[in-house]
Parts: sequence; C-alpha cells; structure tokens
Amino acid sequence: MGHNTKKITVLGLGAMGTAIARAWLSAGYELTVWNRTVSRAEPLTTEGAKIAATAFDAVAASDLVVACLLDDASVGEVLADADLMGKDLVNITTSTPGKAGDRAEWAAGRGARYLDGGIMAVPPMIGDLDSGAYVFYSGSPELFAAHRDALAVPAATRYVGEDSGSAALHDVALLSAMTGMFAGVSHAFALMRGTEVAPKEFAALLIEWLTAMAPYANGVAAHLETGDYTLGVTSNLEMMVEANGTLLRTAEEQGVSPELLSPFMTLMERRLADGHGDEGTTGVIDLLLR
Amino acid sequence: MGHNTKKITVLGLGAMGTAIARAWLSAGYELTVWNRTVSRAEPLTTEGAKIAATAFDAVAASDLVVACLLDDASVGEVLADADLMGKDLVNITTSTPGKAGDRAEWAAGRGARYLDGGIMAVPPMIGDLDSGAYVFYSGSPELFAAHRDALAVPAATRYVGEDSGSAALHDVALLSAMTGMFAGVSHAFALMRGTEVAPKEFAALLIEWLTAMAPYANGVAAHLETGDYTLGVTSNLEMMVEANGTLLRTAEEQGVSPELLSPFMTLMERRLADGHGDEGTTGVIDLLLR
Repeated sequence: MGHNTKKITVLGLGAMGTAIARAWLSAGYELTVWNRTVSRAEPLTTEGAKIAATAFDAVAASDLVVACLLDDASVGEVLADADLMGKDLVNITTSTPGKAGDRAEWAAGRGARYLDGGIMAVPPMIGDLDSGAYVFYSGSPELFAAHRDALAVPAATRYVGEDSGSAALHDVALLSAMTGMFAGVSHAFALMRGTEVAPKEFAALLIEWLTAMAPYANGVAAHLETGDYTLGVTSNLEMMVEANGTLLRTAEEQGVSPELLSPFMTLMERRLADGHGDEGTTGVIDLLLR
Repeated sequence: MGHNTKKITVLGLGAMGTAIARAWLSAGYELTVWNRTVSRAEPLTTEGAKIAATAFDAVAASDLVVACLLDDASVGEVLADADLMGKDLVNITTSTPGKAGDRAEWAAGRGARYLDGGIMAVPPMIGDLDSGAYVFYSGSPELFAAHRDALAVPAATRYVGEDSGSAALHDVALLSAMTGMFAGVSHAFALMRGTEVAPKEFAALLIEWLTAMAPYANGVAAHLETGDYTLGVTSNLEMMVEANGTLLRTAEEQGVSPELLSPFMTLMERRLADGHGDEGTTGVIDLLLR
C-alpha cells in the first residue's frame, strides 16, 4: 500500500515547503501544490507540479495532503473549507506539542487520519539523504505505515509514537538543547575575543570538546532512570560549583557578561544548598519543573 | 634533553594530583611527592614515590616541579619558602588566566621557568591515553620542549602559546561552552519528563543532534574572521527569534521554567531589534563584551 503513494498535495511553499515539494518532484511523484501567493508556486510547474487554484481543490487532488504552513493557525484557516473526509493529513508546520494534539483531534473530527511532523533540518538539507536531515513523525501509525516510502524521500523519518504531540516535543527538546549549546559557544568565543587565537582554531577545539562531552546526556538518562543522581559521577556538584567560580572570575577578567551561564550556575548552587553535593547536575532538572 | 627528564616532584595529592603522580610512577619516573596532609601521600610510597617532609625539600629534590594544588593562593603559600632558582615549575592548579599570568611573573622573579596547565579531564581519565584527556599548556616554550615527553605521560599535551594565561583561558572557555550545553540538555530532559519516552532513548537522539550541530562553531568562527555575520546563514536571526516563541510556548505547556534559555533568547531579540535579522547568532557575542 505504502509503495503505491504517488500523488501528493503540498500546501505552503515557503523555503521548506518548496524544498520538500522539489524532492518529491525529482523522485517522480505527481504533485499538486498550493500557496497563498501563487507566484511562489509557478517555478515548480516547470518541474512538473500542478497548481491548484484553491486549498479546497488542492486537498481534493490527492489522498495524501502535506501541510507546511506558517503556523498552526494558518493550518486551521487554509483547511477551513476543505473536505478532509478519508484524507491522510501530514502536518509538518512548526507547532507546539499541545497545538499538534489539538490539531489531531480537529482532523479526526473531520474524518482524516493525522500525522504530525517536526523537521530537524534547514531547507538546503532537504532531498540530500547524506545531509543527516530527518523528520520526527507522531500520530496515526497506519498513516505512517501507508506512506513511509513517500515520507522518506525529502528526509529520513523517525516515528516517535501515537501521541500526536510527540514529534513536536522531540523537535522542540532538541532545539532547546541546541540553544543552550549555542549560548555556551557564544560565551566561549566572547572569552577568546581579545586574544590572538584564530577563531577557526578555537572552533576546532570547541567542536571536538563538545562532541566528547555530549555523552554526558547518557549519564543524565541513567540518573533519571534509576533515581540515583550520584551514579557514575566523577565531577560532583560541590566540585562543579567550585569550578563555576573560576569560570565567573575569568569572565570578569575578560570583560564578558556572565548572563548566559549564571542561571544554570544558580540552579546548581540551589541544588547544592539543598544537600546534594555528591550528585551530578541532574537535580537541576527537578528544579526546572513547575 | 627532554628525553632525560626522569625526576619529578609533585606538590598536591588531591584526586587529580594523585592520578598524575601514579601515571608517572607507572611509567618509571623517579617521583618525590608532598602533600599538606601526609596520609594522602603514603599509599604512593608502595608504588615507589619518595615523600618529602616539607615543600622546600620536595622542590629541592627535582628540577621539574609540578604543582597541583587547591587554588592559586595555595601555590603562593606552599612555595613561599622554596628555592625556585633554576627550577622548571609546571603549575596545573586550576586558575584564571589573570592569576596564571601573575604567577608566571612571580615565578620568573624567583628564577624559575614557568608553564601553566589547564587539565581537560577528570582523574579517572589520567594515564589512559585512549580516554581523550589532554592538558593545555602555555608559558615558557623552552620548558615545554624540555619536558614534553614527561608531560605527555599523564595525558596528551596541547601547547597554546607563550602567554601564561592562555592555557587557563582555553580551559575555562571550553568548560563555559560545556556549561551552556549542559544547561540546554537539562532543559531538554525537563521537557521530556512527563512523557513515556525512555531517557536513554532520548539521550541517544540528543547526543546525535548536539554532535551534528557542534560545527555551528565553524560558522561563528567564519563570521568573526570576516566580520560578515550573515555568511552562510540558512536560519537567520529573524527566523530563530520566531522559533524561540515555539520553544517558550512548549516550555510553558510542559510546565518547564524557561530560565536556562531566556537570557540567550533575549540577546537574540536585542540584536534583531538592532536591525540584524539577516545574521546568525554571532552578533550576540558582541553584546556580551563590556
């Protein structure tokens, strides 16, 4: 069944929607596209896409409908009048887990199967299967099974469960971790700014170091799974809080604001003050939860 | 010359000093050790170490003296009465770049060559050359050349220049970047806390993702070297600030405090408000500098 998916409708031709549409066109899929501003759709006609005049017509053209719109509200607006009965709706519009869950219920109420997607890529990576790009999917396992070959064309797929919000949650969680890493990288480059060390040389050290330290996440996972936050800890909270002092004094010496590091340090200190000096930093997670 | 270094004095036998002393003992070096609390030194005598009764005697015993003490103030106290004339002092005590620079001047004033070290490892990694552990060294290039074989026994060495503070600065910069990454990882695990996703499964995704995203540092380096912060940017500040909204709303939905992410987001917004929406995040570095 999945192997026969050859007709796809793509709603939304921003940079990401266009890249995804192109990947399917290159792979020989029969594509119907729709975009609010039709001029963005026109270049794709030379590659074989059919332009639908309305979102209603676009949805009617294929059983598999992929929405890649500005935000969740746009999904509701664009599909307001469409007939979704019997359709397979794959929503790769950026959203929160909660809104993805609501959208899944909305789709079910209109007779569609629903799959939500979270894209771990920027548009230039789409269609390049060596780029490492992938899309988290969650929601209807039947829909995913039916179209997994087609869905694997723009980027690798990772199905993360029936809960429709799961893909968005995985997406946001990884982006959040990355945000923290980028903050740390920014602080590190700021510290080196007044030196003669070439940024690209420092970048090489930084990449090697962060790559070596990323498996710290396995230690956190072991703590969360066992409930023992001291498991395998070689540099404990007491030592880390002590080391934080050196980090802060160095920032001061170099004229760098500590604002990107201090919130995490403050939570480490709170956890230490609560009597957990023999743990790693996992207890900070408990302090973040409301 | 360097190949003949066979006598070393180690001052300070905390966990790190002990691990380093053991690595040299295993490699057949003639070691003199000193620690304020002598009981920490005694186990090493069975492995061949000689215990010096005083720091003065310990320094007198070898031309190469390695200090691995509690902090910079301890280095000054322990070596207050020692005769450093003609000695090679390698100070791997944790310090700031500024204090390392002052300590180098102090050592020079007492007739010693000086090398400062920043250890990128925890004690269990010392002596295991497959562990990835290494030590940044900076200061006297002659001292480093003279003892590089001996210095390479506990962990790999990386010489980062004549400025004595450089090793400490590199050390602190990498630890600072790691602190940011750990903050992001903590936030990410907090988001996943209420779900049925096994922490170790999520950790695997996180490690893969952070490893894939670490080369972002190369982009930042290219921006800093060219002064063009838009170079090669696929996800610009305007898009990232928009995406931050989804990250914050998701944190809200999941009951997770945004405090570890919001300072970086605030700086991104400031830079965007300053008219740099087409850049990546590199401009945040400028905002951190005082």
